[in-house]
Amino acid sequence: KLDSVRFMHLIKSKSIERFDFPWLPFFNLSLQLPDGQVLPLPPVILGELGKDPQKPTVCFYGHVDVQPAKKEDGWNTDPYTLTEINGNLYGRGATDNKGPVLAWINAVETVRAMPVNFKFVIEGMEEAGSLGLDKLLEKENQSFFSDVDYIVISDNLWLSNKKPALTYGSRGNACFFVEVECGSKDLHSGTFGGIIHEPLLDLIALLDSLVDSTGRIQIPGIYDSVAALTEEERKLYNSIEFDLEEHRNNCGVKKFLYGTKEEILLHLWRYPSLSIHGIEGAFHEPGIKTVIPAKVIGKFSIRQVPHMDLSVVKKQVRDKSFLWPLNSPNKLKVSMPLGVKPWLTDINDLLYKAGRRAIKTVFGEDPDFIRDGSTIPVARMFQTVTQKSVMMLPIGAADDGEHSQNEKISRHNYIEGTKLFAALFLEISKLHRTLHETSHTETIN
Amino acid sequence: KLDSVRFMHLIKSKSIERFDFPWLPFFNLSLQLPDGQVLPLPPVILGELGKDPQKPTVCFYGHVDVQPAKKEDGWNTDPYTLTEINGNLYGRGATDNKGPVLAWINAVETVRAMPVNFKFVIEGMEEAGSLGLDKLLEKENQSFFSDVDYIVISDNLWLSNKKPALTYGSRGNACFFVEVECGSKDLHSGTFGGIIHEPLLDLIALLDSLVDSTGRIQIPGIYDSVAALTEEERKLYNSIEFDLEEHRNNCGVKKFLYGTKEEILLHLWRYPSLSIHGIEGAFHEPGIKTVIPAKVIGKFSIRQVPHMDLSVVKKQVRDKSFLWPLNSPNKLKVSMPLGVKPWLTDINDLLYKAGRRAIKTVFGEDPDFIRDGSTIPVARMFQTVTQKSVMMLPIGAADDGEHSQNEKISRHNYIEGTKLFAALFLEISKLHRTLHETSHTETIN
Repeated sequence: KLDSVRFMHLIKSKSIERFDFPWLPFFNLSLQLPDGQVLPLPPVILGELGKDPQKPTVCFYGHVDVQPAKKEDGWNTDPYTLTEINGNLYGRGATDNKGPVLAWINAVETVRAMPVNFKFVIEGMEEAGSLGLDKLLEKENQSFFSDVDYIVISDNLWLSNKKPALTYGSRGNACFFVEVECGSKDLHSGTFGGIIHEPLLDLIALLDSLVDSTGRIQIPGIYDSVAALTEEERKLYNSIEFDLEEHRNNCGVKKFLYGTKEEILLHLWRYPSLSIHGIEGAFHEPGIKTVIPAKVIGKFSIRQVPHMDLSVVKKQVRDKSFLWPLNSPNKLKVSMPLGVKPWLTDINDLLYKAGRRAIKTVFGEDPDFIRDGSTIPVARMFQTVTQKSVMMLPIGAADDGEHSQNEKISRHNYIEGTKLFAALFLEISKLHRTLHETSHTETIN
Repeated sequence: KLDSVRFMHLIKSKSIERFDFPWLPFFNLSLQLPDGQVLPLPPVILGELGKDPQKPTVCFYGHVDVQPAKKEDGWNTDPYTLTEINGNLYGRGATDNKGPVLAWINAVETVRAMPVNFKFVIEGMEEAGSLGLDKLLEKENQSFFSDVDYIVISDNLWLSNKKPALTYGSRGNACFFVEVECGSKDLHSGTFGGIIHEPLLDLIALLDSLVDSTGRIQIPGIYDSVAALTEEERKLYNSIEFDLEEHRNNCGVKKFLYGTKEEILLHLWRYPSLSIHGIEGAFHEPGIKTVIPAKVIGKFSIRQVPHMDLSVVKKQVRDKSFLWPLNSPNKLKVSMPLGVKPWLTDINDLLYKAGRRAIKTVFGEDPDFIRDGSTIPVARMFQTVTQKSVMMLPIGAADDGEHSQNEKISRHNYIEGTKLFAALFLEISKLHRTLHETSHTETIN
């Protein structure tokens, strides 16, 4: 848990800001609230430390909401009690994202004379798509963000278990619900099995038509807008240190869909993928229930990449879904409760240079320049709204298991990550000094 | 809830018998207990009232265990508080099977001079396949059941909402679990989506291959042993009063797979069906979780009919399942945690004649002679072990919603059902008198 005393200590001029956007419980998006009730979103915390106009201003972003976790999901320890085992700190949020948030709080506390002005944004809706954050950024763009020079996000993982990385892109996420309904009540499979079109059979036929066994998405047109791979880009992949075996061991599968490093990275970072997450409304408990569920909701998502368009993807999914149920009398409803765009930035940006130097200082090696297969909507959101430099600087290792059972951050990464953030402040201040000196020289000339 | 005072009042010589078979919580069959723990089965209650050797002995069977029910499944009332609304008594077990059990307790209490000796068997494992009951029957066959002449089960429903019925057959039930596993932990769909063989995609492909959109099972050989339909049997279906529209309204679907009464009844009673119930291990809650589940268990069942053989069905399902995962590295496990055979008896049996007369007395009309699409393993079990006449005499209406939300029995059916059981005692005693007189006459001649 965030230490509120230390936390409040950091918060200076602006303390806690509350917003009136409709708040939604974690996994109930607004579209689903049955009674139309409007609830406030949880607060977003804005803070600042230092206002020296001679210094650059760095703004960190983090979130303190987490994915759901229950002991019975297969955790070895209570997911909500941080537990150290063999140098690893286990707990929900350890790496995504409470650990990194604490690491930069530690860094700010540790550095005696901060070489930069420091700001931060902490939200509690990231795992639900950062609802309302875009409105906050727009609202604060001319005030809170007006003097911010650099925005740093540490909300993803390295590609490796050992080698640090800088991230310059992430895939988007378009979540879909496909609802099939035959009536208002579940039916007994003895009394009705064999004479009705079962909604779950319909749904399974539909879900089965989405991806083939090679992982290729079967939705017509879905690959049409995917950015073409240039030769230069392909070369970038060659130099990345990536141990296929290590990655395979991290996730525990026997075999990947592809056999080479390049193919794997390309399919994780710059090609779309479709995953099916589960079905709501069907029998899901241990044991047997001889039921024909009356209403089932299949849930899947597509990780889109540049330059796929969300509204086009939505239309393609609907067109594909509505092709299927021709001979079924059941009701079909397709919706996209969440749609987040991909993000891509330029690794030649000055902020990335500072990040690279800080990593070299702390870890003694250059980082991998990587993308992230998962979705970090805030990177794109900050970049689009504030037009500032945005960098993703992960401190968690590839095997941290974000969103999974037994999520952890290693003590090593947590401490070196703290040092990295302190080093980054210094590198950014140097960057700024260099810029100032240059401009001074120019003025003299 | 069963009134234990009235209940104990009925229990004479044998009170409560306990057994040492491994007991299992409701929906965890023994195969699934992870720690190998052996727990006792819940008690089966045997009781008797009267021991007059001049009278025939009727044994009623009932069960007091129920399907799971939660208010949030879509119940309008608390499922465990019996609630009367517009002449219907709502509650889990109202029709399956606590209501009928109470009805024959009422009948026994109401009839002043019982014209028959009365015995009963009440168990608490019916919904889990009557685990251990077969062993009990075998054990008691030469003692408790030795003087039993007729066994009556009231654990199914009429075919109609209004017209009473006698049941002479039921389908079996072979439940299957298909488990697909890629590793020990769930994965993030951003970090691994697009590069692994997702278990849920594999499972969905497998489940999708089981039944086509016309309801026909696609497992090779599954129809091979189904008893051929004779012309005489087909005629029996013609005379049954069955309102397709009423049945459709009862279950709430827009359209059946078949358009005629005969086709519907044949596919419910004497052809097998396959239903998919759900998936364990996948995301099933409201909202979104961007997870790739590591282990998913698909659950489906096949209602078999005479003369399908359980072990053959199991083999056919396994053969079919193992055809599929050729290009997937994921682990596949197929099991049949529950297998119950179908049941069929002769409607010309004397007990059925008595049942028919009792129905005529109380309801003023002849019953439909029907089968049941669902599985009542006890009918077959009692018949096989005791070799006595077994009759299924339902008192619940077609729209009672057994196993469903808002299960009910109407006050009318509950009261007329009580009368029916009382009338049955009388008809059976008459039957017995007729038999005695006949045999007496024969002796004289």
